[in-house]
This record gives sequence, C-alpha cells and structure tokens, in this order.
Amino acid sequence: MTFGLAPRKALPRVPLHPGEGDKSHLTSIEGLAALSLDALSSVAYGPEAIVVVLIAAGTGALTSTLPVTLVITGLLAVLVISYCQVIAVHPDGGGAYAVAKQSLGARASLLAAASLVVDYVLTVAVSLAAGAASLASAFPALAHHLLAVCLAGLVLLTAVNLRGIAESARVLMLPTVLFIVSVLGIIVAGLLRSHPAATVGSVQPVHATQTLGLLLLLKAFSSGCSALTGVEAIANGVPVFREPRVKRAQRTELMLGSLLGVMLVGLSVLIRRDHVAPRGGVTVLAQLTAGAYGTGWAYYATNLIVTLALALAANTSFGGLPVLMSLLARDHRLPHLFALRAERPVYRYGVVALALLAGALLIAVDGDTQRLIPLFAIGVFIGFTISQVGLVRHWAGQRPDGWVPRALINGTGAVLTAVACLVLLATKFVAGAWVVVIAVPLMMLLFTRIERYYTAVGIELGIGSIPATPTRTTSLVIVPLSGVSKLAESAISAALALGDEVIALSVQHDAATADRLRRTWEEWDPGVPLDIIDSPNRSLVGPVIDYVRRAAHNGRRVAVLIPQVEPCHRRYDILQDQRGILLATALRYRTDTVVCLLPYHLSL
Amino acid sequence: MTFGLAPRKALPRVPLHPGEGDKSHLTSIEGLAALSLDALSSVAYGPEAIVVVLIAAGTGALTSTLPVTLVITGLLAVLVISYCQVIAVHPDGGGAYAVAKQSLGARASLLAAASLVVDYVLTVAVSLAAGAASLASAFPALAHHLLAVCLAGLVLLTAVNLRGIAESARVLMLPTVLFIVSVLGIIVAGLLRSHPAATVGSVQPVHATQTLGLLLLLKAFSSGCSALTGVEAIANGVPVFREPRVKRAQRTELMLGSLLGVMLVGLSVLIRRDHVAPRGGVTVLAQLTAGAYGTGWAYYATNLIVTLALALAANTSFGGLPVLMSLLARDHRLPHLFALRAERPVYRYGVVALALLAGALLIAVDGDTQRLIPLFAIGVFIGFTISQVGLVRHWAGQRPDGWVPRALINGTGAVLTAVACLVLLATKFVAGAWVVVIAVPLMMLLFTRIERYYTAVGIELGIGSIPATPTRTTSLVIVPLSGVSKLAESAISAALALGDEVIALSVQHDAATADRLRRTWEEWDPGVPLDIIDSPNRSLVGPVIDYVRRAAHNGRRVAVLIPQVEPCHRRYDILQDQRGILLATALRYRTDTVVCLLPYHLSL
Repeated sequence: MTFGLAPRKALPRVPLHPGEGDKSHLTSIEGLAALSLDALSSVAYGPEAIVVVLIAAGTGALTSTLPVTLVITGLLAVLVISYCQVIAVHPDGGGAYAVAKQSLGARASLLAAASLVVDYVLTVAVSLAAGAASLASAFPALAHHLLAVCLAGLVLLTAVNLRGIAESARVLMLPTVLFIVSVLGIIVAGLLRSHPAATVGSVQPVHATQTLGLLLLLKAFSSGCSALTGVEAIANGVPVFREPRVKRAQRTELMLGSLLGVMLVGLSVLIRRDHVAPRGGVTVLAQLTAGAYGTGWAYYATNLIVTLALALAANTSFGGLPVLMSLLARDHRLPHLFALRAERPVYRYGVVALALLAGALLIAVDGDTQRLIPLFAIGVFIGFTISQVGLVRHWAGQRPDGWVPRALINGTGAVLTAVACLVLLATKFVAGAWVVVIAVPLMMLLFTRIERYYTAVGIELGIGSIPATPTRTTSLVIVPLSGVSKLAESAISAALALGDEVIALSVQHDAATADRLRRTWEEWDPGVPLDIIDSPNRSLVGPVIDYVRRAAHNGRRVAVLIPQVEPCHRRYDILQDQRGILLATALRYRTDTVVCLLPYHLSL
Repeated sequence: MTFGLAPRKALPRVPLHPGEGDKSHLTSIEGLAALSLDALSSVAYGPEAIVVVLIAAGTGALTSTLPVTLVITGLLAVLVISYCQVIAVHPDGGGAYAVAKQSLGARASLLAAASLVVDYVLTVAVSLAAGAASLASAFPALAHHLLAVCLAGLVLLTAVNLRGIAESARVLMLPTVLFIVSVLGIIVAGLLRSHPAATVGSVQPVHATQTLGLLLLLKAFSSGCSALTGVEAIANGVPVFREPRVKRAQRTELMLGSLLGVMLVGLSVLIRRDHVAPRGGVTVLAQLTAGAYGTGWAYYATNLIVTLALALAANTSFGGLPVLMSLLARDHRLPHLFALRAERPVYRYGVVALALLAGALLIAVDGDTQRLIPLFAIGVFIGFTISQVGLVRHWAGQRPDGWVPRALINGTGAVLTAVACLVLLATKFVAGAWVVVIAVPLMMLLFTRIERYYTAVGIELGIGSIPATPTRTTSLVIVPLSGVSKLAESAISAALALGDEVIALSVQHDAATADRLRRTWEEWDPGVPLDIIDSPNRSLVGPVIDYVRRAAHNGRRVAVLIPQVEPCHRRYDILQDQRGILLATALRYRTDTVVCLLPYHLSL
C-alpha cells in the first residue's frame, strides 16, 4: 500500500510536476504497472486471511468465503468510485496527510500521519512475511526459517534503498504483468479443470471451536479487508500520468479496481469449489496454483513471481515512509534529521527507521503473516476515512455544480470505511489491533511534543527577529598537545593565524615525561608558551575543561584547537587517537568555548 | 581463567605496587578467595567434559573417568610446582604476554597475546554457558532457553563492567568459600552415603559408537584439561599479596592446586561409584549434588552457588581482557582507542569488544558448553607453555645457584603442556579447535599489521624529531548560516574574534528565500559580508567545500565556524540539526580547513 505519497523510489525518473517532459509521463496502462503492484499483491494474503478465520467453524464454514469476498468487493467498488473523485479534486496527489492538513486541521493530519506510519511499517512486514511464505511453498526447506527469510529480504531492501539506486517506474512493469497473468491464469486454468491438478502441503487436523455466527463473519470480513490496502496509491500518484492526467489516472483506478475485484472473486470461487483449507507449509494461493498448473515448473515460477511481487510491494513503503517522515520533519513534527538527505537522494534516517520498525515487528510475530493481519488494514482504513471526509468538507466548502451527489459518494465511502474500521478494531482488538490503538495516539503525542519543542527553541533563538549586532573581542587559542611533532607544528601555526594569543597545553600524569616534554619544547622554541597540567589519575578531559573555564574569565573569546590525524583510507579511522574527538565533544557539551579541529591528512 | 594479568576489576582497591599500604594487601587465604574462583569453578564443566566423551564407548567406559582425571591431576601438580617458580621469578606478576615480551621476543609475545584473547573470550563463553546449564538444572523451565540465559548474563556483566563499579577483592570471598564448601560437601556427603540420595534429569539412551581405545582416552583427557584453566591467575596477581608476597603467593598456589586436585579426584570417585552418565536437562555436577544432598533446598542452593561462581569467573575476563588489550594498544598492536579510558576507570572499548566476541561465540554454539570445550584449553595451554619456556630461558640466561633443577622443573612443565596442547589440537581439530588454529595466526597478523601502520604514521608525523618553527599567517573565517537569528549573531561574534576577515555563507536552493535572506541581512547589518551560493539540487556539503577550497588559494589560513545548538538535556540531541556535524565531518575528511564548532547552549 502506498498511501499518502507517490512511491518516490519507484518513480524518480518521472518528473512530479506535469508538463516537464510528457514522454516520461505514464499512460494508463503504464500507470497500472507502476502503481498497482501494492494493491494487487494483497491477493496473496487477503483470501487466505478469510479462510484462516472461517476454518474455526469447521471446513463447512469455508463456503462463506465467497459471500464475505463479495462484500469486500462491494466495498472495493465504493472505494474506487470515491478515489476517482479524489483524483479529480487533488490532481497534484498528496495522500491522507496532505489532504487532512489542508481541509481538516492539525489533529486530523496528525491522526493521518500516525496511521500512515503504522501502515507503511505493516506493509513492509506483511509483504515480506507473505513473500517468505510464498517462497517456502515452492521450497519447503525454508518453511522452518520464515523469520530468517523475512529478515534477509528486509536487509536486502534496506541496503538497496540506502544506496538509493535510481529505478524507473517502467522497471515495475514486467513483474506486474507477470503477476497479473499468473493470477488470472490460476483462475482460468483452475476453473477449466474439473478437479485440482495436484495438491500440495500437509493436511492439518481441523478442530471446529466456534459456530458460524455473525461475529465470525465480521472477523473474516475484517481480515479480508487486508486485500484492499493499496487502492489509494494511484490517487497519490496522479502527477506521474501523461495529460489528460486526471482522466488517465481515473481510468487506471477503474482498471485496478476491476482487476482486483476479478482476482478476489475468482480466487474465492476456486477456494469454494476445491474446498481449499489451510494446509501446513504452503499458502492458500500456492494450493490454488498447484490445483491450476500442477506441481511442475509453472508452480515454482508462479510462487517466485508472487514472492517478487510482494517484495516489490514492500519496497514501495521504502519509497513512501521516508518521504512522509521528511514532510513531518519539515513541519517540525519529527526530528529534523529525517528531512536530511545529506548528499544522496535518500532520506537515510527514514529508511533505517522503517527497517528497524519492520524488523522488530517481524521478530515479534516470528515472521507469521496471519499474526500481522489483525494489525494491518486498520491504519489504511483510517486513511481511507480521513481522505474521504476531507473531500466531503471540500465539496461542502466549494459547492461546485453537482456537488451534492459527489459529496454523497464520498460520504458513503467515508461512512463505510469508518464502519469497516470500527469492525476491524472491535473484532481484532485482542488479537493485535490494540497495538495500533496504543501506537497511533502515542505517535500523535510524540509529533505534538516535538512540534512544541521546536517552537520553544525557535523563540529562544529569536528566529524571525533581528538580533543584536555582533561584537569583536580578543581571542586566546589553547592547543592541547601530547608531544612535539609535525602535528604540533601544524596546530600551533593554525592557532597563531586564529588567535591574538596562543598557549600550548599538555596534560601529563608523571613528572619525568613532563620534564622531558618541557626540555623538548625549549629546544624547539615555537614562540608559544607551554602549560603542563598535572593529572596523576590520567584523566584528560576534566583538567582541560577546568583550564579552559579559568582562561575564559578574562572576557576574551577562548578557542581550543585540537589537531586531528586523518588517515588516507577511512578503514584506518579506527586506528586514530580518539582523545581529540572525546575532548571536543566534552568541550561542546560543557563549555561555551569554540572547538576547532585541525585535520592533518596522512599519506596512508 | 585470569591469565596474563591480575584481575583488575576484582582488585581495584588493592594497590598493585607492594608496600603502598600493607593492610589492603591480601593474606594467603584472602588471596585464595580472590584469585581462585576462576580455576575452581572449572570443576563445574571439567569432569562433565570427560564423561561426555567417554559415553561414546558405552556406560562401561565411564569407569575410565577416574584414571583420566588422575592423569590430569598429575599435570596439575607439575603446573602448580612450575608456577611456584614463576611466582619467585616474576614477583611483579605479568602473565604470558609480559613474560614472552621480556624473554622470548616479539613473535612469542604475539602468540601469547593472541592465545590470551582467545582464552579470555572463551572463559566468558564457557563460564556463562556452564552457569546457564547449572541454573537450568535447578529450574528446568530454563532448559530450552539456555542461550537466552547466557546472553542475559552477558548483558548484565557488560553493563556492570561498563559502569566500572569498584569492587573489592574481599567481595569474592563469600562466593568462593560457599563454592568450596558446597563442592567439598558434595564429595563428603556423597561418599558417606551408600547410594545416591536422589536422581535428577531424564535418562538418555546410550549408543556405544566407539570402542574404548587410546584415541578416546586422549580425547577425554583433552576435554578434561579444561578443568586446569585458571591456575595461572595467582602467578599473575603476586603484587596483591601482603609481604612476604612470594611466599604467600606460593602458599596460595599450593592451596589452590590441592583444593582443585581433591575436588577433581573426589568428583571422579563419585562419578565412578554412582555410574553417573550424562542426563537430559541437568549437569553432571547437579546429578552429584542431588546424589549427595537430595533434591531439597540444598540442591537449589548449591546450583545457585555454582551459577554465581561461574558468573564471577566470567567476570574475571572482563577484568583481564580489556587490560590486556590496553597493553597491546600501548605497544601499538591494537587500535589506540583500546587504551582509552576516557574519564572512567574502564576500558570501555575492550569491554564491548569482549562482550561482542563472547556473544557471537555463544550464539554460534547455541549456548552449549560441550560445543565450546574443544575450543577451550588450547589457548590456555599455549600460555602455560610460553610462560614456562620463558622461565627456562630465564634460568639458562641468569644461571643462579641451583638453576639446573629449576630449569628442569619448568622444562618438564613446558614439555608436558606443549604435548597436552598438541593432543588437544589433534583430537579436537575437527570438533572446533580449527577455529583457534585459524583465529590465533590471524590475530597475530593483525597485531603485526597494526604495529607496522603505527610505525609508518610515527615516521610521517616526525615523532621524536624537532619540527620546523610554526609560522603566523592571516586568516579568513567562513560562517555557514541558514538564516538570521541569535545563533547567527553568536557565530559572527566568535568569528570576528578569531579571524582577520569574516564572511557569512548561505547555501540556498530557491531564489525567493535567497532574496529574503539578503534583505534581512541588510536590515541587520552585522558588519560582515554575506555570500549566497545557489544549490538547485539542495546539496549543502559539496558547494561549501568548493567555496572553501577556492577561498584557500590566497595563502591565508581558512577556518569554517559552524554554530551548533546544544540542548540542555541530552535526550533532545536527536532533535537538533545534524547538518553542522555533517558539514564538519566532510570538511575534516576532504579539506585542510580548520573546522570550528561554536556550541550554543539552549535552556531546554
């Protein structure tokens, strides 16, 4: 699900502002390839989530898979129509956070942001877990190492995204087409056969512990709603379409909706006909694949394609969350470092944060997709609701011609997704949704606190007002040295250029070394006095800080100039003396002194 | 095993130089308490290691436990006599690394250092693994979480040692006395009973896969040698004894040897009489405990005492390895940062390195003591051999009265430990000793390479020769700013104090913001020109570095002064702008400019 923002990593070569080069913009079909993988790949875990819930009432209850899927498909239809309107109103994309900030105010935008963060993290976790399950369906040896497979995939995605490889939207086309063809092929081939070509996996005993009542159906519905995640991606990515982009984006949204609907219903029909129940070691989709294609090469190929599609779906979050976090950082709602790209086109802190959160989640659930499902979809449905409520506000505020039916469509969508959201929460609370219920308000609180801190700092720094005129004073530069060498010469030279007065300072713990240094100093005679401080307990930082504080009393500006050896190769960094850095850090924290670092570059 | 150095953490309140305060020095009995836990606690895994090997030839082969133990005890006797001579010759302690550096040259000292590193790490791993097994014998619920218990213990030890709590040698007395009393109690009570009071653990099927031949006996011997680790600790800690310290230390060494010998033989007699074989979920020592005391409170208490003793034995490595690493760092054979204690009496890098290595090892063997035994003891026996060969050299060089018998004693010890070492290597190579065979030469290579690097750097820095006289030049201070605020005022004031000329510099990516900044600057008029660089792709570091390099061409000294907001509470560090630090780092790496950091302390 890419939600809130266009999938940046998937589309860097596509200018986000329309008309900047129309050839690089996408047609409807290309847009489908580029933006739908996230939504379509959820058929790999959505139907299975329904089956896993219903089996609690025995294998007979599995016939309810189809009606439950039809209700979900109905909700999908409402969402698709509603998002076609979102596309028309927000042709610059934006997503729930932008929409809420614009139309619904601070609190709603914080809610949108928090639920988006939850969802990006869950998209990565769920897609990787489902991908690992799909891979293990093809290679049963992996079945007992799902978590390891997930984490390996996560490390790979993180590394790729930290490097920030430029990746064209068109790269996604082949996997998307392969995925669509494979899944539609499963449905067609499966329906053409009178009975499954092959069965895979180990039969598991079924203990019917519940009766098929409304609660179980609602639970199945809410689990299945995980299949709807990702349908907002196209609305967020409108700027990547070729003109007329609103038309093209709407057409793509409709295509996505139809395809997803056909896939969900088709797979459910097959599940019902073949009495597919959860089996050990294989996914439901893998069972349907075996039923349609047998267990030859097509079975392996399809499972690999599904794995690839899920991995790429996880990758869209790596495009989305870091960008969202950078927007939050620019709004002073997250630490500014998340807006820091250094010299690479990558928000590395956001990428690392996403990897750590998704990794923690995967470890917590031991790489099991089904244990993530109760947490998933809630955040997405909060986003759906906020987007649509925002649009209702928009209609009610602007009142263009024919605004009432439009507002009704979005209003219906908002009500339905809000109800779905409540159902999700109520039926899944104990199974894991409580995590979201705790995490979202905590994050909103965090955003608020951070914003408050930045505001206070801005006031303290007098940002926005003209400060006093700077004054010039005399200066004393202190040069801490451990001995006489070219390093010392270089440091004293630099200090002489900067300071009106220069003092060399050495901290020594035994008298003999101190005497030797004093004699060498006299022999050298660099034109600068040397002060030696006695530190019998070998501490360095404390004595220097005391000395600096005493020196500062005379009203002059005090600077400490620390020469620092810089090796030619970064791998030798660990061999360099760290005392300079340690002293610099302590001085910055504990004094007002200017800390000057003089690099001395080695040839090796 | 505390080996190579006195256990620093155990003895910080005891002056290491004799005569500095005799009351704080230890008597023989106190010395036994302070220095023997490491050696004595190996009875918790040594006899078990023999039994685990012999069982491969069926339960009947277990009768060989006693003869194997007697051979090991004989080796112990030779070692103890030999170490009494080490004490006399090296009354200032020192250990294998110091002895080898003094008498055997660089290569032997590198070998000693590498084997010591291996042993300290293995002591931590083996002691924690054996401690976890002992704890799980008392609380079977832990039996499936041995690795977690080990890692929890490791984290605890690391945290305690990073804080550097001052711990008196006398703190170790109570656990040592309890441990000695418990183990001797097991032997006495066990022998007094006609049959075991209780049995614990689950019977495991015995598959006799080998016959009891010489090879199996040698394997059992080499596994059992793990019980001899730690007997060198007293020789390394001679300076902590009260005068006459050589006499007292020798007396302690003899007491340790007798105690350890009695424990090993006593436990073997019990193992033979009660036909103790490895059982699921409990250690051999726990079986003997149950046989002697029954399974009441005494069983739990003894297992806890054993666990505590093993944890404290692991802790001695945390005292020893960081000190050894600091000595290696001072000899330029490890990165200097390992000699860095900052302001705490802790070599934190060494502590962390030890924790990481031991943790990796524990994870690799899944917290199983028996899988560590083949790696263990080899390094210790290399150290034994080096110490004794060094002493033979000493006798042959000094030739005091009666040096021949002394040299013979140490020579016998050296030959025996060298032979034992070869036996260990040969019989355990495939089972894990190859790790040591690879690790030790690799470490020696690493030490050599590091030493060579430091020598080359020393030459490049002209250490030991008088450098040229420093020269004074004019200076230009560049102040990178993003806007006008009190921070800017503070930075310009500091720059005016330091530089002959000051320029403010701003990198902007859009023209409107740049214009606004220029107008604000004119309004403020701080008496310093402002240069604005255009950076349409938002990069900051590159443009500043280019600017600095151009400015440096005029022969003047260039400094870049970066104001850095310092929050009052360190937890707000993450909220501060990291661009300054990033720029400072890049300037240090890529230019010769002086990088000045001006701390601006916030009130919050």
